Amino acid sequence: MTQGSASSPVGLHRVLEPRGDAITLPQAARRLDARPELWPDEVRIEVETLNLDAASYRQLADTHTTDGHLDGPALRAEVLAIIAERGKMQNPVTGSGGMLIGTVAEVGPESPTGLAVGERVATLVSLSLTPLAITDGLARWDGRSEQVPAEGHAILFGRTIAARLPDDLDPRLALMVMDVCGAPALVERVVSEYAAALPGEAGDVGAPTVAVLGGAGKSGSLSLAAARRAGAGRLVAVVPNERERALLTPTGLADEVVIADARSPLGLSRAVEGAGGPADVTVVCVDVPGCEQPAILATAQGGTIIFFSMATNFAAAALGAEGLAADVRMLIGNGYVPGHAELALDLVRENAAVRGLFEGRLES
Amino acid sequence: MTQGSASSPVGLHRVLEPRGDAITLPQAARRLDARPELWPDEVRIEVETLNLDAASYRQLADTHTTDGHLDGPALRAEVLAIIAERGKMQNPVTGSGGMLIGTVAEVGPESPTGLAVGERVATLVSLSLTPLAITDGLARWDGRSEQVPAEGHAILFGRTIAARLPDDLDPRLALMVMDVCGAPALVERVVSEYAAALPGEAGDVGAPTVAVLGGAGKSGSLSLAAARRAGAGRLVAVVPNERERALLTPTGLADEVVIADARSPLGLSRAVEGAGGPADVTVVCVDVPGCEQPAILATAQGGTIIFFSMATNFAAAALGAEGLAADVRMLIGNGYVPGHAELALDLVRENAAVRGLFEGRLES
Repeated sequence: MTQGSASSPVGLHRVLEPRGDAITLPQAARRLDARPELWPDEVRIEVETLNLDAASYRQLADTHTTDGHLDGPALRAEVLAIIAERGKMQNPVTGSGGMLIGTVAEVGPESPTGLAVGERVATLVSLSLTPLAITDGLARWDGRSEQVPAEGHAILFGRTIAARLPDDLDPRLALMVMDVCGAPALVERVVSEYAAALPGEAGDVGAPTVAVLGGAGKSGSLSLAAARRAGAGRLVAVVPNERERALLTPTGLADEVVIADARSPLGLSRAVEGAGGPADVTVVCVDVPGCEQPAILATAQGGTIIFFSMATNFAAAALGAEGLAADVRMLIGNGYVPGHAELALDLVRENAAVRGLFEGRLES
Repeated sequence: MTQGSASSPVGLHRVLEPRGDAITLPQAARRLDARPELWPDEVRIEVETLNLDAASYRQLADTHTTDGHLDGPALRAEVLAIIAERGKMQNPVTGSGGMLIGTVAEVGPESPTGLAVGERVATLVSLSLTPLAITDGLARWDGRSEQVPAEGHAILFGRTIAARLPDDLDPRLALMVMDVCGAPALVERVVSEYAAALPGEAGDVGAPTVAVLGGAGKSGSLSLAAARRAGAGRLVAVVPNERERALLTPTGLADEVVIADARSPLGLSRAVEGAGGPADVTVVCVDVPGCEQPAILATAQGGTIIFFSMATNFAAAALGAEGLAADVRMLIGNGYVPGHAELALDLVRENAAVRGLFEGRLES
């Protein structure tokens, strides 16, 4: 059953508040229309699990903890109230959401997603913009975990992206990989461009030297593997301590693993230079503030920096490069690149070292 | 007279606080060494005028205004105290600085700047990282203007950029142009890349459609002129009101001038589409928050957004593109591109329309 009136591929037709001239995109909206009937380009998902994002869950749990005792029923009631009131699971304090797993229940005749009824999928956009209704009162959730077993439905817009859960991988592993899949996809694209530059063209540096700050992490290790496949020359991983170096070195994902504080301009650039730098492509995967100028200093003139850290400060990067007279291209790490989920899952499948790092996280 | 010990091209050798492992770049430092003796790669400037940046001057003036009366001597005393204490003019509240005009007094034998003694220059990096000492007590300044007549000296590091003031342009006009010269230089580079893409290559869109948000402003109008010269196809300028449309339309800098609120996702994308969009290259020159998702929606898949606004929020851009499944390249507007000052001054010289807009600002 589909709605008749025109829909927007980005979901504006489901925004209930605010309306009119002040209308916002669904993420910024106060309230969404979560009714199950579909517009022709939409998809309905039967929900199986909500994965609240870490920041949101922490805020909610703290609110409902007294003297070290978590009041699970109260936490559950608040999550239910948020979803009922807003038509989406967006923590009003943190603004963040999470993602969900479910099964495709209905596909509108004009849906461009390519999804089919019965497929098990994970949404690759935030719950903070996904229309959602819960029908089981979250009865199976005790409030003690970010993973929320749930019954109900969610709506995907024409442009909402979701990925089929692969049959050959542990779903928890697949989710972890898909959560950071934008990074390796963009790294692959950028490194390929350098590697393919013709002699004399801009970007012609031969096989580019790539430095990944936070190389032992989830997005970092996938970025290293993607850079290698895309034709990187020397691969340098920067890690903060001996433990991460011991973890990463034996994998061979990087040609050199160096310990440095990514917030230290001198420390970082010396470490990268000592390992064969400066880098033609620097990938920032460490979620701490203050890495902008150090990353700029560690990058060669004419090089590219890809910032994936949400702790990146726009002005610090822009003014920092100017102050250092650094002719570097600085990219905001877009979490979406076509085919990003498949690319990341393939890297895990084909690269035992990456897979080992991820499986190690599952166990811990 | 030059110092013997090794210097750093980015000025680390002049950082007095903090030192040791916690050493920062000069911009983040609490205190710089502003002594006039040069290291071999440095340049000393005899200062003529300081131009405090608008945010810094406003904060200082507000602090020293009581019942609508500005206490000029107190303001002057505070600026002197800041410079004496920090070795640079960096407002401790806003963190910002400004720029300066002066004459080259001495050039170290290893300076890579190409400057010569006697040349009149403007610094193109912030005062917040420039060693500075004042010798006249700012006696000629009444505290009522951001323009501060001053005697003293400033130091340029090996990598500090400065531009000769041209003989053929009003220095006030030249300063205004140089203040925003990073924007047209980066726009020219990006638009040229699209225009030069071979058939079938990534970026092959023929002559790219370019949209400039804030097209009637300083960086916006220069960006329009740069895009035209670099081979743009359709040029769309977005302005907030009728007054700016009336100002910009007769110049012919854009093919179409449309009025839209750059913070409105629907309003902006419809305006750009109605003018021939979506844009292959979107240039954000409006200093208001909340333009990230609207700019993403107004940009074609495979397109590029260049954010020059200091009000840009990194996370809003990164998560916004992901939520919209927008395959767009997002660039942090680096204020430095080699040759940027000359490029911008040339645009003003050769383009009477741009020059007219800038001269209009001088008069108002």
